[in-house]
Amino acid sequence: MILDKINSAEDVKKLKIKEKKQLAEEIREFLIDKVSKNGGHLGSNLGVVEITIALLSCFDLEKDKIIFDVGHQSYVYKILTGRKNDFDKLRKYKGLRGFPYRKESKYDFFETGHSSTSISAGLGMARARDIKKENYNIVTLIGDGSISSGESLEAINDLGFNKTKMIIILNDNGMSISSNVGGISSYLSRISINTRYLKVKNKVKHSLDGTKYGSVPVKVLSRIKDGLRTFLVPSKYFEAMGLTYVGPLDGHDLSLLIKVINQAKKSDKPVIIHIRTQKGKGYTPAMENPDLYHSVAPFDKEKGVINTQKETYTSIFGKTMVDLASKNDKLVAITAAMKTGVGLEEFFLKYPERSFDVGICEEHATTFTAGLANENLIPVFAVYSTFLQRGFDQIIHDICMQNLPCVLALDRAGLVGSDGETHQGIFDLSYLSLIPNMVITSPKTIKDLPKLLEWAVNSKKIVAIRYPRGGDELELTPIKKVEYSKWEVLKKGKKVVIIATGKMVQKAALADQEYNLDATIVNATFIKPLDERLLLKLAKENNILTIEDNVLNGGLSSLITCFLVKNKYKGNIISMGFDDKFVEQGTIEELYKQEGLTIEKIKENVRKLKRKS
Amino acid sequence: MILDKINSAEDVKKLKIKEKKQLAEEIREFLIDKVSKNGGHLGSNLGVVEITIALLSCFDLEKDKIIFDVGHQSYVYKILTGRKNDFDKLRKYKGLRGFPYRKESKYDFFETGHSSTSISAGLGMARARDIKKENYNIVTLIGDGSISSGESLEAINDLGFNKTKMIIILNDNGMSISSNVGGISSYLSRISINTRYLKVKNKVKHSLDGTKYGSVPVKVLSRIKDGLRTFLVPSKYFEAMGLTYVGPLDGHDLSLLIKVINQAKKSDKPVIIHIRTQKGKGYTPAMENPDLYHSVAPFDKEKGVINTQKETYTSIFGKTMVDLASKNDKLVAITAAMKTGVGLEEFFLKYPERSFDVGICEEHATTFTAGLANENLIPVFAVYSTFLQRGFDQIIHDICMQNLPCVLALDRAGLVGSDGETHQGIFDLSYLSLIPNMVITSPKTIKDLPKLLEWAVNSKKIVAIRYPRGGDELELTPIKKVEYSKWEVLKKGKKVVIIATGKMVQKAALADQEYNLDATIVNATFIKPLDERLLLKLAKENNILTIEDNVLNGGLSSLITCFLVKNKYKGNIISMGFDDKFVEQGTIEELYKQEGLTIEKIKENVRKLKRKS
Repeated sequence: MILDKINSAEDVKKLKIKEKKQLAEEIREFLIDKVSKNGGHLGSNLGVVEITIALLSCFDLEKDKIIFDVGHQSYVYKILTGRKNDFDKLRKYKGLRGFPYRKESKYDFFETGHSSTSISAGLGMARARDIKKENYNIVTLIGDGSISSGESLEAINDLGFNKTKMIIILNDNGMSISSNVGGISSYLSRISINTRYLKVKNKVKHSLDGTKYGSVPVKVLSRIKDGLRTFLVPSKYFEAMGLTYVGPLDGHDLSLLIKVINQAKKSDKPVIIHIRTQKGKGYTPAMENPDLYHSVAPFDKEKGVINTQKETYTSIFGKTMVDLASKNDKLVAITAAMKTGVGLEEFFLKYPERSFDVGICEEHATTFTAGLANENLIPVFAVYSTFLQRGFDQIIHDICMQNLPCVLALDRAGLVGSDGETHQGIFDLSYLSLIPNMVITSPKTIKDLPKLLEWAVNSKKIVAIRYPRGGDELELTPIKKVEYSKWEVLKKGKKVVIIATGKMVQKAALADQEYNLDATIVNATFIKPLDERLLLKLAKENNILTIEDNVLNGGLSSLITCFLVKNKYKGNIISMGFDDKFVEQGTIEELYKQEGLTIEKIKENVRKLKRKS
Repeated sequence: MILDKINSAEDVKKLKIKEKKQLAEEIREFLIDKVSKNGGHLGSNLGVVEITIALLSCFDLEKDKIIFDVGHQSYVYKILTGRKNDFDKLRKYKGLRGFPYRKESKYDFFETGHSSTSISAGLGMARARDIKKENYNIVTLIGDGSISSGESLEAINDLGFNKTKMIIILNDNGMSISSNVGGISSYLSRISINTRYLKVKNKVKHSLDGTKYGSVPVKVLSRIKDGLRTFLVPSKYFEAMGLTYVGPLDGHDLSLLIKVINQAKKSDKPVIIHIRTQKGKGYTPAMENPDLYHSVAPFDKEKGVINTQKETYTSIFGKTMVDLASKNDKLVAITAAMKTGVGLEEFFLKYPERSFDVGICEEHATTFTAGLANENLIPVFAVYSTFLQRGFDQIIHDICMQNLPCVLALDRAGLVGSDGETHQGIFDLSYLSLIPNMVITSPKTIKDLPKLLEWAVNSKKIVAIRYPRGGDELELTPIKKVEYSKWEVLKKGKKVVIIATGKMVQKAALADQEYNLDATIVNATFIKPLDERLLLKLAKENNILTIEDNVLNGGLSSLITCFLVKNKYKGNIISMGFDDKFVEQGTIEELYKQEGLTIEKIKENVRKLKRKS
């Protein structure tokens, strides 16, 4: 095994090309083995094996810097920069991160997680280098989806005009580059045109033209179209923007990649190298079903991933959307390149004319939602809590200032687990509740979600519905009737009122089952506005415990506390939620425990409050 | 006077071309007269007189829809759609808005204020039209600066691929289109090439090439270069993106504009019409000094604007930056197309190699700042409070998650006055304080600003400094020494502690001067973290009044209240700040009054709190 002997980037450099090719195969074996055991991003990492080896062959990590856009494709890099022995704890609590992490290695030069930041960050680093009159290379590896997002385009505009030395590797694995790619313009690109690529392209073109192409599965075809919708930028674009363009090249041809990158290094100007890679390369199930293998839970590597179709908030959201659409032809759905992730696949199939995937473009998606609402449609923008942060200004200006009714469906609110810091949805209650005209609601269990969603689309208000990743811990009687701003009393008790939101209501109920708390348990169905009348009534003779899976600053507890203090409340309040720090990776339960969101802690706090009353 | 007879868009349509040309001149007179009396955006409106008349000549506002990007160039439109008699109250309290406002007129189809939203919004409206199987035109008027921002590029990508019927008028008034514009490709563009434009372009080219061109003032030239930096997208770009491109056309040639727009209407595909206009057209001072006349206070129209060089937070920020840069060569400055607005002109002149204007690209600017910080420079990103909302996710991910030390200098925090809802900086304390690792500070008077800024750039922390538009109401003894998280006790009194931030400290001191409050007055120099020790000490025997020029949700009062309640405080707290709504236009004093941030209200609240203790 060559891989056994590789402990640093320097070791990679010393290999002969034949050994490097063998190393590539060994890395694929390693990746499939480790990811099948621990879960993680498989397809994208299998796709970047050769380009990563090529980068390490061409650059000197003691001075040059490589930035991975999005960052989930940095496994190969981690393997080759001294971290291969940590892969048994990949994405686990206190284990190896699934994204670049500066504290983990000095070779992780910039942290990523959300897409489309790498060129901006690299450009900042490159300009700093130039100011300090230093001389080294800065390279970013960015996917075709990420490069079409606004921030990337802003950065390319800046980079190309000012001609700062920097290399962008455009990793085109989604076939989402428009078919008019191919204009070859730079002296570098004369090195090679990959014929395999051209063949693939022609096949795709035929399929899209309606000609049958037996072996391309329907799923792949639909992904191609998706890609086309989200990205339509040919080489001409990059040249027009002032970049030297090379490509497209076969991203699995190691010798070619090394040759071209070494050429690009000689340029004092920005160079973009466009490579074509295959997601899942080397593992048939992942090649055949790239969506499914993008990010996976542990699976049997012989049998492949078995889609268990478990009921989740996401799946119920998707079903409800289809159901509501059949009754209301004003309902339209928007996603920012997360159709599968947010559960809108069936909706898109059944109602294509009312479905919009705008690419990784949350700014555009948000204002676009406002535009649809302005014409009296009922748009539902389904988006991960953490990604909606990208549309913050647009929510304020385009949706809320004009008070344009629409629904923001925030999936992955609260903890997401193994994706860690960059993906936790723990800020939304704060960043949404500060915005006038915004209504925020959350289902206490999956069964409340359809009712809240139906209420929201008919409410003529701006409603954010937040719900967590995965499913429930406990079943509870579904909410009877959703009424604007009204809370739900689940159980009456003495001296202490627990006010919880979303899945935290389940935690409260579990604590009660376990410890017989004898406290009133309230589901704060609406986080904003508060159920002020009920709150004042409950506060009269009780101490209060609030529970939320959001940072405490500006969250539910903050709204409740300020309201009560304003109304001269003199009782005691204990607030459970996340402190003012980022929450790392781990299983959701491990993280709840670390952050003190446990039934034991609920019991303790209720007892503390009982003693005080 | 033709203008006297124009009360609606229909009236414009009926005019002969000669009358329309006369109308254009009358509108210019009207604009200069009204804006010189009331202040407002002059240059951009003088530039769009012909295109606005052309739009009203070609479209039927009873069904077609026009969207003004940014919106400050909608005065001519307002004049011609029945609002000319409201111009005496332009931008005044309860008067005519300076931006499109749906409640003001049914012809204001979408509200704008921040740039680069119009194509997204228009596309949403166009898709809604198509879903409803209706048939009308949607037109956006967007400037060359706005179109280079990420959100616009995202929207163009979407529009061009899906070929939705829509017309974009690209109003190129900054000469910021790259000189390689000119590739003419569509059938429409064969109609005409404007020779005057080509002449101007050649002149500019010469000047930029270093050849002397006597009559172009240096200021204009520097703007041209600025523009080039921020936008480098030629016609090829739009064609590559799937739009039919027409232009460039002389934006003051009314007959030509009408002809081309009527042609474009016939297309079922997206069309972009690129016009060249002159900012300030028809008023010599504004043409010679477009920056100065972009947005003006009332002035003498015969003598022009006299630059009074009053001392403001902005000017002191700029001076301090220059001063600090002379002592520290790691200091670099970033702006997102607001070099003059944020007071960085001198810095850019003196330290060009440490100065970065990235265009209207707050997302890129924020991550770029993180990139500079990652290489151990000390970047200061100077930005209006309201515009930084665009970089929210990047502050969280790229700056705070990696804890990369830098300074966010938030100008125009609090109320901005006549620009109204879209520009008030009343959310920053909330949206910043929810982010881990973020330090927030604010000077109580102008004289504190240099000290805070110097502290911040040397602090190795992520520091947001927020300061208001304009100058002070009251002088106060400057802060002696800035210490991390420490507050300043200005005056000791009995039973009540007033904790105020920024300019609200002046309000508290003024109230004390006027009414002899006998309350302790504290400057919360740091909003985050709080001075917890001092706060606990003060809270022991006192009731508390907090004052901030920010929304109460998630702001300073919220942080103080939650901290005190957590620490079992049983006293009374009254919080003064903005309620959960948008704040309209008016003078800052009128708005303080409307929102209850007055010395009378401070007196009342202190007395209430005294009675309770």
